[in-house]
Amino acid sequence: MEFTTIGKSVVRKDAAAKVTGKAKYTRDMEPKNMLHAKVLRSTITHGIVKHIDTSKAEAMEGVLKVLTPFNIPSGNFPTAGHPFSLDPAHQDIADRKALTDRVRFYGDEVAAVIAVDELTARKALKLIDVVYEELPFYLDAEEALKEGAVEIHEGSKNITGHNTYTVGDVDIRDAFAQADYIFEDVLEVQPVQHVQMENHVAYAYIEGNGRLVIVSSTQIPHIARRVVSQALNMPISNIRVIKPIIGGGFGNKQDVVVEPLVAVMTVMMNGQPVMYDMDREENISCTRTRHGVRFYMKTGVRKDGRFLAKELRAYGNGGAYAAHGHSIIGKIGGNFYRTYPAELATKYEGFTVYTNCSVAAAMRAYGIPQIAFATEAHVDNIAKEMNIDPIKLREMNMVKEGFKDKLSGVTINTCGLPDIVKKAKEYLHWDEKIKEYANQTGEIRRGVGMAIFSYPTATWPVALEIGGARIVMNQDGGVQLQMGATEIGQGAATVFSQMAAETIGIPYEKVNFEEFTDTDIAPFDTGAYASRQSYVGGKAVKKAALEVKDKLLTRASVLLSLEKGDLDTQDGQIIRKDNGQQVASVADIALDSYYNYHTADTIAADVTATVETNGIAFGGSAAEIEIDMRTGRIEFLKLINIHDSGTILNHMLAEGQVHGGMSMSLGYALSEVMLYDQKTGKPLNNNLLDYKLPTLMDTPSLDVSFVEPYEPTGPYGNKALGEPPTVPTAAAIRNAVLQATGVKVNVLPMNPQTLFEHFLDAGLIEEA
Amino acid sequence: MEFTTIGKSVVRKDAAAKVTGKAKYTRDMEPKNMLHAKVLRSTITHGIVKHIDTSKAEAMEGVLKVLTPFNIPSGNFPTAGHPFSLDPAHQDIADRKALTDRVRFYGDEVAAVIAVDELTARKALKLIDVVYEELPFYLDAEEALKEGAVEIHEGSKNITGHNTYTVGDVDIRDAFAQADYIFEDVLEVQPVQHVQMENHVAYAYIEGNGRLVIVSSTQIPHIARRVVSQALNMPISNIRVIKPIIGGGFGNKQDVVVEPLVAVMTVMMNGQPVMYDMDREENISCTRTRHGVRFYMKTGVRKDGRFLAKELRAYGNGGAYAAHGHSIIGKIGGNFYRTYPAELATKYEGFTVYTNCSVAAAMRAYGIPQIAFATEAHVDNIAKEMNIDPIKLREMNMVKEGFKDKLSGVTINTCGLPDIVKKAKEYLHWDEKIKEYANQTGEIRRGVGMAIFSYPTATWPVALEIGGARIVMNQDGGVQLQMGATEIGQGAATVFSQMAAETIGIPYEKVNFEEFTDTDIAPFDTGAYASRQSYVGGKAVKKAALEVKDKLLTRASVLLSLEKGDLDTQDGQIIRKDNGQQVASVADIALDSYYNYHTADTIAADVTATVETNGIAFGGSAAEIEIDMRTGRIEFLKLINIHDSGTILNHMLAEGQVHGGMSMSLGYALSEVMLYDQKTGKPLNNNLLDYKLPTLMDTPSLDVSFVEPYEPTGPYGNKALGEPPTVPTAAAIRNAVLQATGVKVNVLPMNPQTLFEHFLDAGLIEEA
Repeated sequence: MEFTTIGKSVVRKDAAAKVTGKAKYTRDMEPKNMLHAKVLRSTITHGIVKHIDTSKAEAMEGVLKVLTPFNIPSGNFPTAGHPFSLDPAHQDIADRKALTDRVRFYGDEVAAVIAVDELTARKALKLIDVVYEELPFYLDAEEALKEGAVEIHEGSKNITGHNTYTVGDVDIRDAFAQADYIFEDVLEVQPVQHVQMENHVAYAYIEGNGRLVIVSSTQIPHIARRVVSQALNMPISNIRVIKPIIGGGFGNKQDVVVEPLVAVMTVMMNGQPVMYDMDREENISCTRTRHGVRFYMKTGVRKDGRFLAKELRAYGNGGAYAAHGHSIIGKIGGNFYRTYPAELATKYEGFTVYTNCSVAAAMRAYGIPQIAFATEAHVDNIAKEMNIDPIKLREMNMVKEGFKDKLSGVTINTCGLPDIVKKAKEYLHWDEKIKEYANQTGEIRRGVGMAIFSYPTATWPVALEIGGARIVMNQDGGVQLQMGATEIGQGAATVFSQMAAETIGIPYEKVNFEEFTDTDIAPFDTGAYASRQSYVGGKAVKKAALEVKDKLLTRASVLLSLEKGDLDTQDGQIIRKDNGQQVASVADIALDSYYNYHTADTIAADVTATVETNGIAFGGSAAEIEIDMRTGRIEFLKLINIHDSGTILNHMLAEGQVHGGMSMSLGYALSEVMLYDQKTGKPLNNNLLDYKLPTLMDTPSLDVSFVEPYEPTGPYGNKALGEPPTVPTAAAIRNAVLQATGVKVNVLPMNPQTLFEHFLDAGLIEEA
Repeated sequence: MEFTTIGKSVVRKDAAAKVTGKAKYTRDMEPKNMLHAKVLRSTITHGIVKHIDTSKAEAMEGVLKVLTPFNIPSGNFPTAGHPFSLDPAHQDIADRKALTDRVRFYGDEVAAVIAVDELTARKALKLIDVVYEELPFYLDAEEALKEGAVEIHEGSKNITGHNTYTVGDVDIRDAFAQADYIFEDVLEVQPVQHVQMENHVAYAYIEGNGRLVIVSSTQIPHIARRVVSQALNMPISNIRVIKPIIGGGFGNKQDVVVEPLVAVMTVMMNGQPVMYDMDREENISCTRTRHGVRFYMKTGVRKDGRFLAKELRAYGNGGAYAAHGHSIIGKIGGNFYRTYPAELATKYEGFTVYTNCSVAAAMRAYGIPQIAFATEAHVDNIAKEMNIDPIKLREMNMVKEGFKDKLSGVTINTCGLPDIVKKAKEYLHWDEKIKEYANQTGEIRRGVGMAIFSYPTATWPVALEIGGARIVMNQDGGVQLQMGATEIGQGAATVFSQMAAETIGIPYEKVNFEEFTDTDIAPFDTGAYASRQSYVGGKAVKKAALEVKDKLLTRASVLLSLEKGDLDTQDGQIIRKDNGQQVASVADIALDSYYNYHTADTIAADVTATVETNGIAFGGSAAEIEIDMRTGRIEFLKLINIHDSGTILNHMLAEGQVHGGMSMSLGYALSEVMLYDQKTGKPLNNNLLDYKLPTLMDTPSLDVSFVEPYEPTGPYGNKALGEPPTVPTAAAIRNAVLQATGVKVNVLPMNPQTLFEHFLDAGLIEEA
């Protein structure tokens, strides 16, 4: 497919704003008379609030109000950034209130102070006395499921979701019976946190007309609007959510975390603006995390290496509230089946479990970093046991183009995996290195490893996919592009603008993208998640742009007395298709559309697009590492991610996405983990000193490559790219460790402590 | 026509915001780091700036920049709030720059200081030295036209427009020859000022993406955008104009007064926000005024009273810049012809003349208060001379339903004049009072008078008429309504919301009107002027609402398996047409439109409407006054305006409009005038102490009545109401003075000085 603007590394729409500091984030937009709130967080991990004494806090100068679970108008609400479902059975679990008298994790929201400034609010928190009745707590999912465990949410049995399926023409037991070998692994990943640059922050006020306005750093303004409507039992038409420029989300802002609370607060303050800006400590342990998951994985293999039967039991540690409920562990199940389809049968059972950990929910790639680690480690373990080249084992078993997913009904139209694997091999000089690094001894060892994955684009058929776009052509032939899809730093404004420019046939610079998402104004779209926007929103942009182009050519043909079918657009000009001759400028036609005395009719389109397809994206990572056996320190000789995301819409932005994803996966692989005191349940490292996010100093040179099959279901041949980059890297590193040392590390993170213990167990080193 | 919501006195959409102080005006929205500007205004009336020394001002602490005509990037631009014309001959005169080195009136804009605050800027102005070369100046239009007068704008001969027409089947000289009597009057109205509550204020800044944003208290955001584009030679797509809540305009903000200057200023400050907030003194004499006009009016009358021939020469004092050019004096010509069509022929010649007065431009009713005063005074003068009852004379000569205007091509579909005259007669007990007040003597005399007028709705066919509306239905069946038409205090938000509610079939309260007009977001519309919005914008709302209703019923019919043709909407419900049974709520259908897993498609419409009709509105005023011959003080015994504006959309708002218009006309009649020192050209009363705006204490009880024929060209049977109320009152008062005293006062204002002089001339009083 030949493109003019798509694929080009055009400059981000928000580049200048961001580097000059002009970009307006939520905190840059404070109205006058803003009040500030701070939240009193529980100092126990599980229990009941028996009594709250707010009198001292209320008496403090500068304190306007102290909110408790007993004096606020908040009903139960769900927090997941999912489209609403008309089917009650598919609606998200509404287990949350703006404040709670039942504490379910350390840091749960028990009271809030509204004061004239943040410092006063913070001081007043210390004057609130809370009497708790403590209950036993559970930090491990399987512990919370044990007989006799206290229910964290009444009636839940501590299960928020239970996903099961068996797929295949053969009974699963028979399938395993036909296998020559059966391999089993227990694999485990720990919860980690998004640590997006900008903490959760929002403020709310009531307009003169009585409507509630919430300005929030959110990925999902339209969903936040709906959830606040549920929380406050207020008609959705009375609520307006505005998303300014935001400093990242990574899924943490795909949950409705602070909006109901600020809404409740302004309602209680008769509409005066109230802001709640979390600090980093709260943001790490009291917003959302990526689910820790324990996998019991079993594969039946024919002696030639072909996978005949697969079985997985997964326990997702959902933390204290349902949030995204069972859908992440559900998505893990779909992925387990898809990437390496077993010849005979696959069985899955996934539990999402309430625990007293921080709440787990969406984080970039939504379950797939977890299952990809487990799967890819398990595949390498099998390869090692069977003494098969792990790449060959992958090539033999990985999913192929044309595969029809029996669970989702989705057929794979394009699959870049063969090319990805080929590129990875070449990149690593695989065959030589495998030989070179075999049978090492000594304190410094090297290894190569790789991992692959598949990744659905957007959420169909699990959920509704809908996006909207509005394009209005200005008098000079430039256009305004408004969307409900949200720019959250990922470059959505830029690629949507490229799409509009491409389809209308005008220069990219002539597209103005409205970057604030205002639910009163932006066409409906459920927001930024599931790597869906360029696929779903992209379809809406294309639809609107085609309508605009059609109106443009219709007007041009009338004005110029030429056949519409003979005309096309190119770089802001109306041209004749046959000889490329410029017959008018787009600006000429646009001007006429505004001011023609008789036929004025501005050229605009306002469309909704729904999507009932899913283009499966693929990718892989390849690593060459050097490991110091004494310290467990890993250095990188080579590291690459290779992606099949269909057409790459903007190579510069895409590389940025991949770099960011690889960095996140490096942290996942080597250092990041949410730590809790096992005796108290208190988070131990909810700060940027102790939570080991990789810094620039920890980050090696990151290579990026793409294979670009044209995905027919994507509006411009494109598939998911937002989340996939963070999927494969950890597993590739893990497999390189295996190749370097022969040690199967089945857990993340592989921090020095973990590696030390594994090497000790394997007898490779001795305790000092 | 039966309406549900139209016509009801629903509460204004912005009522609560305004009374609680929550409404956000331009000054309520200052971004951080705002700079403030003040303008150095000429202290001569006509001349050339030879030299400006800004060095002392620039050296002052807190001053960032001093702008002069010699260092700013401003081309020539027009300022009139007219739609752009594709025909260069019909484009507005571009005779203005953001600052000027050719001074054309006292207070012309010579330099500007940008400083950290207003006080600093104001102080710095005093440090700027300007050397002028003075030229002779002209405060009177006919003086400026004299042979040898210096051209205020080079090459203009001091004429900005010259309108002429002759209409009729008979040559004008022959027509007059057939008349039994010929009456001639010289009548004159002086310039007055809008004195809207909120002065002109705007600020501008450059967004991170390089686009220029102007926040302005304007009636015409889309036009302001285009004019700034012309002034700065910047693509219109790079400019965004936002209109917050505004504190009145009355046409003064139908001119682009401050926007180019703030745009230039922020450009020179590299995008930092710069605000310019005029003070009241500047606002009165340095923005715009209503044209003073001198009329030479002549009517040939048959002895039965029928007007056979009419001729008018009018000289409009346009002031120093063209602004609305010749269009106001042009509109006077159209009106002269229409209200009392002469049987045989009508001739008009109008001059719009550059003078060295403050700039004249649009002010509520755009020329018609002037011509209505002149015409109605002239008619009463004829009646008196011929000893015919002035109401009978009107009834005999006034325009009738079915009249086809030969100048505009417009046919009068509905004409309430007969009913208006009838109501006026009854209101005043005309026949009794005429007798009672005949032949009075003494110091206190009473009189009755009336006046009528006709008024075109919107500007067709003089100019393009285009409006846009966008409606998006929310999940709960409420809607968002966005328009380019602007709420400027007149109640547009409210009546547009009533229209949407009426046509969609939902309660008024379910319509959210976006009151800020943001050119990036609002559908195109040329703005608030010419009493056009409820007629043109109303057509757009109706079109969009019908589309929304159609989509709603289509979805309902599919969901409910009912025939669409059998369904209708009523008060937020879907009903069966045959029996009125509620089969679903609008909210049910709306929710489905968002979340139906397969067929989701939000219900929205984004439309443009053009109008090629003109529903002529009518009205009249009737006054009973008591006049103190010694002081010239007029007291009101009775005062009413009666309007035919077709369907009244909201009676409470309409009464408010009429009260405001009557108040304005009272000032026009009795006290308001812009005074200039004849020796220096300096304005003498540009402040609220000396400019005699009527206060509440000066205002009598104001009666209001409507006749409501259903105008078929109006979207809801409606015609102009915004401006008409300010047209007839002054003339009715004048005619009551005539009836009370027998004195023909052919000038406005009839302040005590004027009346004293007239009564002295008539020998009714003696000089003390």
